[in-house]
Amino acid sequence: MDSVPHHPFYPLGTSLTGYIANDWSMSAIFGVFGGCLVTLFTLTRQLNQSLNPHLSRRDQALLIWFVLSGFIHLIIEGYFSVNHTRMPTLTDYLGQGWKEYSKCDSRYMTGDSFIVSMETVTAFAWGPLCLVEAWFILINSPWRHPLQMLVSVGQFYGDLLYFATVLVEHAEKSVEYSRPEALYFWGYFMGMNAFWIIIPAYCIATSMKEIAEVFKVAQSQKGKLAANVVEKKRA
Amino acid sequence: MDSVPHHPFYPLGTSLTGYIANDWSMSAIFGVFGGCLVTLFTLTRQLNQSLNPHLSRRDQALLIWFVLSGFIHLIIEGYFSVNHTRMPTLTDYLGQGWKEYSKCDSRYMTGDSFIVSMETVTAFAWGPLCLVEAWFILINSPWRHPLQMLVSVGQFYGDLLYFATVLVEHAEKSVEYSRPEALYFWGYFMGMNAFWIIIPAYCIATSMKEIAEVFKVAQSQKGKLAANVVEKKRA
Repeated sequence: MDSVPHHPFYPLGTSLTGYIANDWSMSAIFGVFGGCLVTLFTLTRQLNQSLNPHLSRRDQALLIWFVLSGFIHLIIEGYFSVNHTRMPTLTDYLGQGWKEYSKCDSRYMTGDSFIVSMETVTAFAWGPLCLVEAWFILINSPWRHPLQMLVSVGQFYGDLLYFATVLVEHAEKSVEYSRPEALYFWGYFMGMNAFWIIIPAYCIATSMKEIAEVFKVAQSQKGKLAANVVEKKRA
Repeated sequence: MDSVPHHPFYPLGTSLTGYIANDWSMSAIFGVFGGCLVTLFTLTRQLNQSLNPHLSRRDQALLIWFVLSGFIHLIIEGYFSVNHTRMPTLTDYLGQGWKEYSKCDSRYMTGDSFIVSMETVTAFAWGPLCLVEAWFILINSPWRHPLQMLVSVGQFYGDLLYFATVLVEHAEKSVEYSRPEALYFWGYFMGMNAFWIIIPAYCIATSMKEIAEVFKVAQSQKGKLAANVVEKKRA
């Protein structure tokens, strides 16, 4: 057991070969992250204004959601997917960010097979597709709702399993992957991941409703058309 | 280590408290399973013929898919979800069935947290929704394609993660959950689960295409309508 007591992750006995402690503070890590989000937000607003300023308020918000979500998946989760076998040893910005986050979920340090699988799909399937979806919203593509369903169900279900696996480990095997402090469990683990439950659920519900509405109209038109044909035949 | 060498599951050292060996043969287990599928198939065809005989061939096939899939999720995977903490000890038909299947994946014997989470969602969300979807196909509901997207993405992604977690465990931790015989790995593990990759992928692709087509038509009609209004105003 090479480095048992020298890291902040739970369960305390977890062995992490080559672990190097962070030298960035928590506020520095989140400061840079927040700055990047604000920059992306501003650029997306610009793009929105210059390409399609008549988007509804809801779609303006969802455009930002899919852009931010896409870059988070591709860059942050992509970094994890590519480097997951040596996360405890990494000291660049994203490596330190993941070590800070892992205080609420050590599975990112140990290469847990569910986390690696789910994050790889999220990074390289849902990530790029979020950006395509943002584009489809901007140009009002007929593929916008089918793709929104695909991506949002993917995000929702991945996050649901993310929470559920921790619940099962806790309830049935008494394993805790989060440090006990409220900041980590409630702030990082519950707080950050809740977005990918709530917003995709909203996207799924609205897309399903809009798709059903369009099919309703198409079916009633088909009905009228058929009635017209019958009438003309009679005449 | 209570019962190490007395069970057929891999990895060989896995400890399974209270394991009881099957007394049903493999052919008896699959015979009953096959019989149930044939019965369900026949009843579904009957229902189809009496309620909506004009369904397209594709939709007739998908109706059967969603009925069989729904019952497999609800009954077989529901049984696992409810009993997952004591699977090695169960000797009723479904218990013996799961012990036979687990020769290709021992995670069903050990209450693996990903398997428990994924199977619980599959059993109690995708299962009932498959049956609702079958009904929506039968009555040609406008909700048919939105629900088909939801259920099929759920099935596809769950199964993708099912395969991916085994791949990660094998490639990175040299853990084998399947017995080495081809029957178990290729027949049970790959063969049985391939259905829930291939058919949901087909369902997702066709639903996305059909939804986009309907939106295209609706958009072009809106365009025509707008052009008419402009013309009338000019006149």
